Amino acid sequence: MSDLFASRWVEWPAHVVPGDDKLPQGFRAGGIAAGLKASGRADLAVLVCDEASSTSAIRQTRSSAAAAPVLVNRELVNPGAIRAIVANSGNANAATGEEGFENAVQMRDHTAAALGIARDSTAVCSTGVIGKQLNIDAVCAGVESVVPLLSNDGRASLSEAILTTDKGEKVVSVDIELPGGTVKMTAQAKGAGMIQPAFATMFCFVQTDAVVSEETCDLLLGTVVKRSFERISVDGQLSTNDVVILMASGASGVAVEPQTEAEALFGQALDTVLRSLALMIVADGEGSARVGRMVVEGGEDQTVEHVARTVAGSPLVKSALHGGDPNWGRIIQAVGMALPDSSRIPVDIEIEGTLVCSAGTAVPYDEGALAKAVAGDEVEYLVRIPGTGSVSEVFFSDLSHEYVTINSEYTT
Amino acid sequence: MSDLFASRWVEWPAHVVPGDDKLPQGFRAGGIAAGLKASGRADLAVLVCDEASSTSAIRQTRSSAAAAPVLVNRELVNPGAIRAIVANSGNANAATGEEGFENAVQMRDHTAAALGIARDSTAVCSTGVIGKQLNIDAVCAGVESVVPLLSNDGRASLSEAILTTDKGEKVVSVDIELPGGTVKMTAQAKGAGMIQPAFATMFCFVQTDAVVSEETCDLLLGTVVKRSFERISVDGQLSTNDVVILMASGASGVAVEPQTEAEALFGQALDTVLRSLALMIVADGEGSARVGRMVVEGGEDQTVEHVARTVAGSPLVKSALHGGDPNWGRIIQAVGMALPDSSRIPVDIEIEGTLVCSAGTAVPYDEGALAKAVAGDEVEYLVRIPGTGSVSEVFFSDLSHEYVTINSEYTT
Repeated sequence: MSDLFASRWVEWPAHVVPGDDKLPQGFRAGGIAAGLKASGRADLAVLVCDEASSTSAIRQTRSSAAAAPVLVNRELVNPGAIRAIVANSGNANAATGEEGFENAVQMRDHTAAALGIARDSTAVCSTGVIGKQLNIDAVCAGVESVVPLLSNDGRASLSEAILTTDKGEKVVSVDIELPGGTVKMTAQAKGAGMIQPAFATMFCFVQTDAVVSEETCDLLLGTVVKRSFERISVDGQLSTNDVVILMASGASGVAVEPQTEAEALFGQALDTVLRSLALMIVADGEGSARVGRMVVEGGEDQTVEHVARTVAGSPLVKSALHGGDPNWGRIIQAVGMALPDSSRIPVDIEIEGTLVCSAGTAVPYDEGALAKAVAGDEVEYLVRIPGTGSVSEVFFSDLSHEYVTINSEYTT
Repeated sequence: MSDLFASRWVEWPAHVVPGDDKLPQGFRAGGIAAGLKASGRADLAVLVCDEASSTSAIRQTRSSAAAAPVLVNRELVNPGAIRAIVANSGNANAATGEEGFENAVQMRDHTAAALGIARDSTAVCSTGVIGKQLNIDAVCAGVESVVPLLSNDGRASLSEAILTTDKGEKVVSVDIELPGGTVKMTAQAKGAGMIQPAFATMFCFVQTDAVVSEETCDLLLGTVVKRSFERISVDGQLSTNDVVILMASGASGVAVEPQTEAEALFGQALDTVLRSLALMIVADGEGSARVGRMVVEGGEDQTVEHVARTVAGSPLVKSALHGGDPNWGRIIQAVGMALPDSSRIPVDIEIEGTLVCSAGTAVPYDEGALAKAVAGDEVEYLVRIPGTGSVSEVFFSDLSHEYVTINSEYTT
């Protein structure tokens, strides 16, 4: 593992340091090409925790068109006791009806049997094309092939097998120094399109060897997902297949007890890891060249949230970010759209710390300096609407030619 | 005037026939280059009705960041007695504060004085860059220059002067055969970006020489705007400057009385004219190559409306339309996103009359035939969600490379 992910918007705490290439103790993984992708690239991965007393937590998409694997996880898997994940790319197994559901169950059952663990401890995840039946025979044969290859070194083959339009792997490996000793945390994510703030369209698998109760896993995951994957937008699209799974093997023997310093430090580490992965997803948003952060301050939580999402989701604002154009007129337009039928509101807008609009009115600023400031990889926007006490942030990608190319020429 | 606008989604009634190049009796118009556009193209237009007893109706943007001219029209103009319009392109006079408001008032007052009509009978409209103060001296000088040139033949120079990123003029001229005689109706629209269903970002000026009361003008305009400009989406963006104005000179002497056959026929003509202009705006959506119609059927008005707008607004669906890709997986994904947190709903999807998804599950279809069907200029989508009795439609443009080019390289 190399350096920690660098962004002005991610601060790594001192007790979180770069980890190695291995998975945490108690985990094995591997991936292969099972023949689901026409390209012949890796498309099937299995991750297993060998500790019977391990714990877990899961969050999935809120879509009412949720894919078959999401339904299987929701209905047939014990969320606090997930010990194995079988994941494929190349086919989302979404909009596939009863046959798709049965295939997802079979994919799950076949993996559980091959690993010798309970079926309701095995989660199933699919990503790729919507509306095609899964080649379940290829999946089952792939599971048979990959299970003997699983190893504690298998992190890379796992993360490779879950990619679709991603430009590259999104992984983090850290050691977390807790009062009782050091624990390890690794995480793999995928996702580039169908990303939206209400929940990112993505996979994220997180492993740790800390001893964490089922309840603490769920509490921490629920909290950090809200601060990471729920704060990003590539194209405003909620996916049919989103899933985040945290698994804790406990193999380190180092405990994270509720309401202790260890819990605070572990939670902070998990938060930083997931925020990093969320930003990696935005930076790798389909066709993305740069990342924006839209911060909205005002007097009501719901209002600042709605304004932040509306502005960050505007294709005009995203195109301006792409072009390195400090075109704040589009920001005030999007704010006005987010709050229709209200009388004119005094909006302040700052871009990279430069005030460009005060109380709804243009103010003079150094255009050359600002044009330079918005040409970087990361651009920060601040919108103030009336009131105080509420803040919302959304990280978003720009809208580029490549986004159009990817999505007009590639059937996802 | 040449042929009527042709689209499978617009049916011209038999009593509406192509009109000539002139404005209806009682109207004069003209446009010039006042120096607001750097390109030196026409950017200022004046339209006036010489009949003191004329009537009118107006609809404007719901944005809370409404531009100065919108505020002037809202606060200082009599909506039923608009006899003149002064309109400029090249500058939206939006986010310009008190100075912008005073400039809009001055633009209005100067035009009223030059024409010798009441100030509260003069509407003011601006479109172009947001956040720059209007060059009011250039506007006033332009008004002085253009007023002597106004003529009943000035339709073309009016429609040219209001264009921004439009590829071309959007105009209609028809004769309407009513029981009491024939009346004339002409209309000019502009708009290509910042178009969304909640209200199109646009200008539309409609003139007729029929005798129509102020109340009937308002009733008819309110009704047909809902069926035309409120049903289109280019990029989901609500503008700061939208305005639609209907003016009736009464010069033909042919009356359109409430609750008569004449009113029904006149209303039908107005509806067809505005629907045509709305479709022209979508077809000329920034970078647009083809137009889609998204029809959603179900059991609740609000739900079918929300689903139609969500699906038509999805950049994934719009990219697929651009690529001529019958990628219905993105449609079901967007439906699932529009209705989050609900259990899986049985969705039917038809594209160009071909059933591709039944009750949420893929069904076999002739892929070659459908690929051919979606390669045309107009593509029709039907989504059925549970329930019956409610239908919503949204016309939308595709998302193209050119949209990105226009919006990342052009400060609007």
